[in-house]
Amino acid sequence: MLLMNDPAHAFMPYPAVPVPGASSGPLAGLSFAAKDLFDVAGYPTGGGNPLMLALSGIKQTTAPTVQRLLDAGARFVGKTHTDELAFSMNGKNAHFGTPRNGGAPERITGGSSNGSASAVSNGLCDFALGTDTGGSVRAPANHCGLYGIRPTHGRISLQRVLDLSPSFDTCGFFTRTAQSFGRVADVLLGADAAPLPPRVRLLRPDDVWGLLEAPVRDALAPALGRIETLLGAAAACDSVLESFDSMYWSFRYLQGREAWLVDGPFIERHAPPLGPGVAERFAWSRAVTDAQVTQATAFRQRFRAQLVQLLGSDGVLVMPTMPDVAPLLSAPEAELETYRNAAIKMLCISGLSGLPQISLPLARHLDAPLGISLLGPAGSDRSLVALAEQLGD
Amino acid sequence: MLLMNDPAHAFMPYPAVPVPGASSGPLAGLSFAAKDLFDVAGYPTGGGNPLMLALSGIKQTTAPTVQRLLDAGARFVGKTHTDELAFSMNGKNAHFGTPRNGGAPERITGGSSNGSASAVSNGLCDFALGTDTGGSVRAPANHCGLYGIRPTHGRISLQRVLDLSPSFDTCGFFTRTAQSFGRVADVLLGADAAPLPPRVRLLRPDDVWGLLEAPVRDALAPALGRIETLLGAAAACDSVLESFDSMYWSFRYLQGREAWLVDGPFIERHAPPLGPGVAERFAWSRAVTDAQVTQATAFRQRFRAQLVQLLGSDGVLVMPTMPDVAPLLSAPEAELETYRNAAIKMLCISGLSGLPQISLPLARHLDAPLGISLLGPAGSDRSLVALAEQLGD
Repeated sequence: MLLMNDPAHAFMPYPAVPVPGASSGPLAGLSFAAKDLFDVAGYPTGGGNPLMLALSGIKQTTAPTVQRLLDAGARFVGKTHTDELAFSMNGKNAHFGTPRNGGAPERITGGSSNGSASAVSNGLCDFALGTDTGGSVRAPANHCGLYGIRPTHGRISLQRVLDLSPSFDTCGFFTRTAQSFGRVADVLLGADAAPLPPRVRLLRPDDVWGLLEAPVRDALAPALGRIETLLGAAAACDSVLESFDSMYWSFRYLQGREAWLVDGPFIERHAPPLGPGVAERFAWSRAVTDAQVTQATAFRQRFRAQLVQLLGSDGVLVMPTMPDVAPLLSAPEAELETYRNAAIKMLCISGLSGLPQISLPLARHLDAPLGISLLGPAGSDRSLVALAEQLGD
Repeated sequence: MLLMNDPAHAFMPYPAVPVPGASSGPLAGLSFAAKDLFDVAGYPTGGGNPLMLALSGIKQTTAPTVQRLLDAGARFVGKTHTDELAFSMNGKNAHFGTPRNGGAPERITGGSSNGSASAVSNGLCDFALGTDTGGSVRAPANHCGLYGIRPTHGRISLQRVLDLSPSFDTCGFFTRTAQSFGRVADVLLGADAAPLPPRVRLLRPDDVWGLLEAPVRDALAPALGRIETLLGAAAACDSVLESFDSMYWSFRYLQGREAWLVDGPFIERHAPPLGPGVAERFAWSRAVTDAQVTQATAFRQRFRAQLVQLLGSDGVLVMPTMPDVAPLLSAPEAELETYRNAAIKMLCISGLSGLPQISLPLARHLDAPLGISLLGPAGSDRSLVALAEQLGD
């Protein structure tokens, strides 16, 4: 197998079709790409699976979120690779290849928004749309050294975007700079329904930080310090989060059930050969029971209520985005799966609660990027991005 | 992985686009499909590879051979799966799946024209276009119990069809019945430039028959007998064929060199993940040397000249199409590769010489179809098909 070391492999090689947009506007001068889950008129929507691509045909209508960017003067430059059916966090697609991590070329980009993170981190465009169900924007943002947001669930439209698990799916985006992060947020988020107050209450969940190995914690310390300098010292909080096992399994059962509802008919009808890990996850998802779903639903409600109460209208969690820097491209599949399972425990805090989380590329470890996250109350997305802007590049 | 046991998996699931054709003509009432290497206006051409499919876009012009069938009143019903980039003989595509063999569902269809053979053998259409470079029509015809032809090289247009190895590539087709075989041949072959005389000279190459295990030879004996009843006793010939190793390697070197010339730029540019066997064959092809090509070219000329001389204008070889019935779907990749290498030795007689060969589904073994072949002089294609019609169903 040849190495996919060309940055251009961020993009699906669809024949270029002009996508009309406004010639001026708040995003004039910025170029962008969209993960190949978003419909763009003139292009197919492949979803990282060959049979899904074959079924797609050429779309006639552009997804509203893409259209909003076009109307704001941003220039569309292409559709980007995605992990297969968005059901992976590794950025390796068995059928279409492995895009290059512009922040650490010997490491995975992470996924499932792998091509979007690759395009932005390699400087091929200014920003890119991704989706985040269980970490698909936050993981690649961490891995590639980018700003990335998983917004409040439901805040940015996912109309005409392939689903994975609708009650978790969100539309996020990546930028290289805090300034672009703010410009795109202005257009896609608008004003907050529940803005953060000028003085926020910074919270440091020690149980989450406790998941890190000491060297990773040390590598994040200066970034944490910068954030505390801006926002005041973080208060430690510990016993508010439920057991990580409950969180992990509730997330996985609910995601699995919904993923099978969404993709099961396609899989049963077309029996697509699925890549390593993806096939196993769908097989697992298919077997999730009603009892597991009922229990997980109840847990999710309780967990969300507790976190909402903890944050109030001014609380912001500061925490690691991921357990570590990106795994090496050469890591065996089993190691990637172990990393993924550890990551889900951090990532499902925002996933289960539906609350917004941004990842900031403010740290490095092992000569690779490492992110730190801020997680705020529902509807505080734009305020969180403003904090990123204040922290600067 | 779910089993792809639905006969409909013969087809690529492209959105149906009407393909206009004549309402009457010599093929009126017959439906057909085309391997997904042939351009059909309104459809992409995927070639069995996900990135090739992404690059394709929607074709505006229909391949002349497909158009000829439409003009003759045949009704187009869809594009069929192909082995990846047509560079396999197993009928298993790592990205798009494994179509079902309608003649022996627990066995491979063979390939690379796997979907076409699947569609016809499952009764989803009356005939289907395939291509045959090294056996891609003959192998699946043998495996699925179909009539199949590899015509004289160059006789049926391959314009607007994805190449594999142009000096070997031919356009063939499959039917379930001898009668349809003749009707399609009338349209695609027309009259022979060099028709066989009423009385042909049947030749039995004992070195080729010697490649068979005794039970396979026994299984073919009644079919051989039927052919001898029609055409007269076959004369044994033995020393005319060159060493099988020379044939095998000459074919492989030339095919490999051309395949790399055709697909190397695509592979180097897009680094597509290739399925098992296919990746290895392209890597091998890339390493073929000029000296190997020069020697193989000289061998091919000599081999062809000898076979042309042996057949004259009235000689017809009668021989097995393949070493055995189709391997089981459960056969490991290494076993399929061994079978493929044994098969190439039989298949490259027509491949290297460019002479036409038809496979007739006149035998069975292990409760599965088994083919017997007739190979004639250049330009005798329609006469060979007429022999199949005389032998009947």
